Amino acid sequence: METATDTQIRPSKRMPADMRPVRLERGVSKHAEGSCLVRFGDTHVLCTASLDSGVPPWLRGAGKGWVTAEYGMLPRATNERMRRESTAGKQSGRTQEIQRLIGRSLRAVVDLKALGERQIVVDCDVIQADGGTRTAAITGGWVALRDCIEWMMARQILQTSPLIDHVAAISAGIYRETPVLDLDYVEDSAAETDSNFVMTGSGGIVEIQGTAEGAPFSEAEFGQLMGLARDGIARLVELQKLAIS
Amino acid sequence: METATDTQIRPSKRMPADMRPVRLERGVSKHAEGSCLVRFGDTHVLCTASLDSGVPPWLRGAGKGWVTAEYGMLPRATNERMRRESTAGKQSGRTQEIQRLIGRSLRAVVDLKALGERQIVVDCDVIQADGGTRTAAITGGWVALRDCIEWMMARQILQTSPLIDHVAAISAGIYRETPVLDLDYVEDSAAETDSNFVMTGSGGIVEIQGTAEGAPFSEAEFGQLMGLARDGIARLVELQKLAIS
Amino acid sequence: METATDTQIRPSKRMPADMRPVRLERGVSKHAEGSCLVRFGDTHVLCTASLDSGVPPWLRGAGKGWVTAEYGMLPRATNERMRRESTAGKQSGRTQEIQRLIGRSLRAVVDLKALGERQIVVDCDVIQADGGTRTAAITGGWVALRDCIEWMMARQILQTSPLIDHVAAISAGIYRETPVLDLDYVEDSAAETDSNFVMTGSGGIVEIQGTAEGAPFSEAEFGQLMGLARDGIARLVELQKLAIS
Amino acid sequence: METATDTQIRPSKRMPADMRPVRLERGVSKHAEGSCLVRFGDTHVLCTASLDSGVPPWLRGAGKGWVTAEYGMLPRATNERMRRESTAGKQSGRTQEIQRLIGRSLRAVVDLKALGERQIVVDCDVIQADGGTRTAAITGGWVALRDCIEWMMARQILQTSPLIDHVAAISAGIYRETPVLDLDYVEDSAAETDSNFVMTGSGGIVEIQGTAEGAPFSEAEFGQLMGLARDGIARLVELQKLAIS
Amino acid sequence: METATDTQIRPSKRMPADMRPVRLERGVSKHAEGSCLVRFGDTHVLCTASLDSGVPPWLRGAGKGWVTAEYGMLPRATNERMRRESTAGKQSGRTQEIQRLIGRSLRAVVDLKALGERQIVVDCDVIQADGGTRTAAITGGWVALRDCIEWMMARQILQTSPLIDHVAAISAGIYRETPVLDLDYVEDSAAETDSNFVMTGSGGIVEIQGTAEGAPFSEAEFGQLMGLARDGIARLVELQKLAIS
Amino acid sequence: METATDTQIRPSKRMPADMRPVRLERGVSKHAEGSCLVRFGDTHVLCTASLDSGVPPWLRGAGKGWVTAEYGMLPRATNERMRRESTAGKQSGRTQEIQRLIGRSLRAVVDLKALGERQIVVDCDVIQADGGTRTAAITGGWVALRDCIEWMMARQILQTSPLIDHVAAISAGIYRETPVLDLDYVEDSAAETDSNFVMTGSGGIVEIQGTAEGAPFSEAEFGQLMGLARDGIARLVELQKLAIS
Repeated sequence: METATDTQIRPSKRMPADMRPVRLERGVSKHAEGSCLVRFGDTHVLCTASLDSGVPPWLRGAGKGWVTAEYGMLPRATNERMRRESTAGKQSGRTQEIQRLIGRSLRAVVDLKALGERQIVVDCDVIQADGGTRTAAITGGWVALRDCIEWMMARQILQTSPLIDHVAAISAGIYRETPVLDLDYVEDSAAETDSNFVMTGSGGIVEIQGTAEGAPFSEAEFGQLMGLARDGIARLVELQKLAIS
Repeated sequence: METATDTQIRPSKRMPADMRPVRLERGVSKHAEGSCLVRFGDTHVLCTASLDSGVPPWLRGAGKGWVTAEYGMLPRATNERMRRESTAGKQSGRTQEIQRLIGRSLRAVVDLKALGERQIVVDCDVIQADGGTRTAAITGGWVALRDCIEWMMARQILQTSPLIDHVAAISAGIYRETPVLDLDYVEDSAAETDSNFVMTGSGGIVEIQGTAEGAPFSEAEFGQLMGLARDGIARLVELQKLAIS
Repeated sequence: METATDTQIRPSKRMPADMRPVRLERGVSKHAEGSCLVRFGDTHVLCTASLDSGVPPWLRGAGKGWVTAEYGMLPRATNERMRRESTAGKQSGRTQEIQRLIGRSLRAVVDLKALGERQIVVDCDVIQADGGTRTAAITGGWVALRDCIEWMMARQILQTSPLIDHVAAISAGIYRETPVLDLDYVEDSAAETDSNFVMTGSGGIVEIQGTAEGAPFSEAEFGQLMGLARDGIARLVELQKLAIS
Repeated sequence: METATDTQIRPSKRMPADMRPVRLERGVSKHAEGSCLVRFGDTHVLCTASLDSGVPPWLRGAGKGWVTAEYGMLPRATNERMRRESTAGKQSGRTQEIQRLIGRSLRAVVDLKALGERQIVVDCDVIQADGGTRTAAITGGWVALRDCIEWMMARQILQTSPLIDHVAAISAGIYRETPVLDLDYVEDSAAETDSNFVMTGSGGIVEIQGTAEGAPFSEAEFGQLMGLARDGIARLVELQKLAIS
Repeated sequence: METATDTQIRPSKRMPADMRPVRLERGVSKHAEGSCLVRFGDTHVLCTASLDSGVPPWLRGAGKGWVTAEYGMLPRATNERMRRESTAGKQSGRTQEIQRLIGRSLRAVVDLKALGERQIVVDCDVIQADGGTRTAAITGGWVALRDCIEWMMARQILQTSPLIDHVAAISAGIYRETPVLDLDYVEDSAAETDSNFVMTGSGGIVEIQGTAEGAPFSEAEFGQLMGLARDGIARLVELQKLAIS
Repeated sequence: METATDTQIRPSKRMPADMRPVRLERGVSKHAEGSCLVRFGDTHVLCTASLDSGVPPWLRGAGKGWVTAEYGMLPRATNERMRRESTAGKQSGRTQEIQRLIGRSLRAVVDLKALGERQIVVDCDVIQADGGTRTAAITGGWVALRDCIEWMMARQILQTSPLIDHVAAISAGIYRETPVLDLDYVEDSAAETDSNFVMTGSGGIVEIQGTAEGAPFSEAEFGQLMGLARDGIARLVELQKLAIS
């Protein structure tokens, strides 16, 4: 039977279309205007949203705001201790790539004009990593961003919410020839194809990234990954709704 | 009629499925083992492939080689002069993201074991930019890489070629509600959706990147972009074959 | 009555000689050889101890090991978001000063010869800050270090423990003319004198740092601060013993 | 007899409570508003005080001034040539720690409101090092600062002096089980305990730093070091008075 | 006969007083206000002149403009691939020395007051190197600068040209005991003396740099080099005139 | 009469061919193998020569040694305090240009083969600046280098001296239309032409640098400057001989 076989494929015994347990814990920071500790299984990311009264220089006087993200990893979030980026003197290419993705994803669901000349900075710091840190960061970052906006509305800084929709993200890949959802580190390291999908609550696609780690993949395979992701993101949006209710 | 309308959509008067004129000029560098000046219309990228006798530290003794890429832009390759990255003291996130993409794309068609413990560095320097610099760099970078490998075979450094296939790349996006191929700078700045596709000569997908610049896009729209890209890359591979024949 | 007055001095209503509630949570990291989430009230520091097979270059061949510490703060650990040190390109003087102090304090209770040619790196990352992050880091860092050593002994990497004693730290200062123990952020900002004490389980002094923030202080005042700290550290050592039992 | 024994303890033949010969030479710089070449034996530090018309950004409009210090060492000030910090691209943690200490010490005796919105930068550059560079820098830095303030008063930039008191510093440590004052490099390298004291002319304590280099020390031992330092600083203040008279 | 001998001296078979073929190609950049691809034999430098509306901070309000230059080399412009300066994190001393020389040379023929409060940045990027890159950059940089000024005059940004004269540069050296003009890489590497001369169209000297690579040289030898350079620069100025006519 | 006029030209009342008082003080550093505090009037440069047992990586196994120089300025060596290069994070172009010049000049009089696989680092730190710091550094650097070599010979590290000749340097320029020797800061700032000459004890030219600060200069003028410099350097070499005798 297919089920029996499938549970033998993934090291975690998950079924191909199963996500890891997801937990969105709000209000975890005493200081931040919005915060969320998001867990995708053993991947834990602390997301804080900070209201900044100014906007980046290139946006001054443009009558609109900005949402940006920064991403970091504690040195021992991973199995091998990594060098601290502050001692390396710069952020790695990977770090920059991820934080640019998070920022773009969050901006896709914010009406920047309605935000006014203000900036919200969403910091996503990986406390513990087990694959999928960027997708967890986007999913939890949205919750922190939303709570920051609620905080602003409660203080009459904003009259109406500039938040247009939910946004969430999940990975999907081909692992041992099977399309699977939400890869953990062990799967990620061995996957033939790895992709990340960012979608809104209404199902629109915000970002697609697909990479052949080994052999190139086909359009049909990519279609399967997108199908898995679509369903996974719908579930993540449900969990976001639950978390903020 | 549709055709009449279509030619009015793109500032360049190109039809939606038209690429810009592509030119692949080989042997442009006196010093490099392989080189190619690639032009996608007004986008000009100088690609050189350099044979390096060693491999990166983390690959030493692993019995395989490496192909990596570096990307740069002359300060006045763009309409507004940009700050030189050497004076800024670091590469921007965008630069790192692009050079990581080029490197992954080229490695996808090289048998690293067959390369032996050697590294080939493909430098892609944008002499003039008009949109699509990363896709031009991948397409021209493959030609430089191929000529470097030919150079090695001619000198008996390699007995058989580790090159498995062609690889080429093109952008596609939704511009004024129409899916179009190979966006130039003007289109790129205004496109609702921007995506880049990297595929092999045999049609396998190596990398997909799709980003909603404005509103999210649908799976159907993405399918159209992929279709345009598939045909465009097939033509680029033909041009590569012509260039090396 | 003195008590009535005293409880009115500190914003937190604590008595002068009262520490904040301290919590030492072990085993919080899936990956690290030793870990401890230490809380001094609202100050939360995640400490991980990582075993590194090599020693710093200047110690190679010296037949002894090394214990070092790194310190960091999440950008929104504080009330005002701070710039990420990785984007600033370097660690601040304050960061370096603190991590040097933590490292010296931990080394004071380790027999480096008995450790052998290995290094243990203790990372102390402030998740949330409310004053006293360096003292919390030393106190929790010791627990992480101890668990790392236990881990090594369980795997026969070490036969006998190189850990000589406990080490813990606490601040004391003069706030509104009263010597108080374990200053929180509000007190720290307004204190006339601020000092940090690091002592061992057997009461030996490892490090003393006293700074006049306003007017200079007297030897008598300093003696009072040392008395408060001595008692506080004795209690912290008790809590460490409880935590590891 | 004790004296006979004591002179055999210190490599320099100094008695435990003896400082090295101290020399404070004023007006050594043609350009600086105040300057002092301070010598503690073979430790020579050139201190210059520079008046800067502005204050740091975070102090603008606060109606008060600032005194800050920078510390450096010539590459061959030490026995082994050190790498120049300008080629290393950053200041070491040690350098930053020391210059922060010097700045705090000097600010402790300046009425920053009375200084007005101006900054004085005291540069302390070690020409030759033989232990105790930070204490020499504070002691000589005060002289340079004082002369800078005199310079300002002579030019009517200030009507009354914002200088409240003298400040000077000395080290004390436990060397071969004996508390000794003003350690030179040979003693410093072998001392069990090393401490630095900064005090004002009226005997108030500005900063205390005590570190166990080997075994932890006791409160009684620390009391002895403080006693030595108190007397030493009183003598340094006398020398400052002599120098400026 | 002397001629027969002379042609045997230089690897390129050039006569001692012969320059390499020089080509000045204008208008090579779609974006820049002025541009020139200059070739001295196999040395190819792309020069672009960019009009910047502001001046450097230290010149603000001074009622005059500025001309500055930046210099770079593509990593594989040379026989051995060089590390990209953007990844090294800084410009080398050689790079800075050359760009300072180019800037000084160009400013020598511009009336900065007549330019007004504007800056022109001349970027000189070496596409391919074979010795003499700095002299080619000055010679071609002048053409780019001149075209930028023409562009400004055509747009009424300037009423009269602030360009006072031509400026061009050439190297001369002693190679195998013979004074020769315009050294290529092979000669440069082996020359006993290497010098660069920058002169104006009217024959005035702007810059002289002479370096003994091996044994010191005499005044008489230096006079011979200056004579060669004088004639060479006169020819380069003729070529500039031809190029802009 | 000419003399009367001439003494009115230079602010220092020096005659055109007069140098400032020169003083070469040896053995000023307790630690360095060779040292010299050189004074050209109010320009004071501390030169130390340090023996390094290794050579730069690119010279390993080449059977020869290396002499290199580093140059720095104390922040308040100048009239306006300059930013410390260690806090700027890099050496300026000017610093690098000067230290490269000093290194080349000293190497010109050392037989690197005879030095063996060792490096001598000559640090030249400007304590006080009043024009001509690079020429003072070369002149004093030679004395430090010579004493380092004597130190090595005294310890049998070298049997014969690899020092071939003296080397010294001086500036000459056109100030108020008059060729003058050894410009101080006031003259340097206003000079029409500024040049530096480096020559050996036997009169050979090692380096010539001439720059038109205002209008271009003629060959005849340059000849006059060279004449002044030739005489000045002869005198400096005499002073070096006196200093080491």
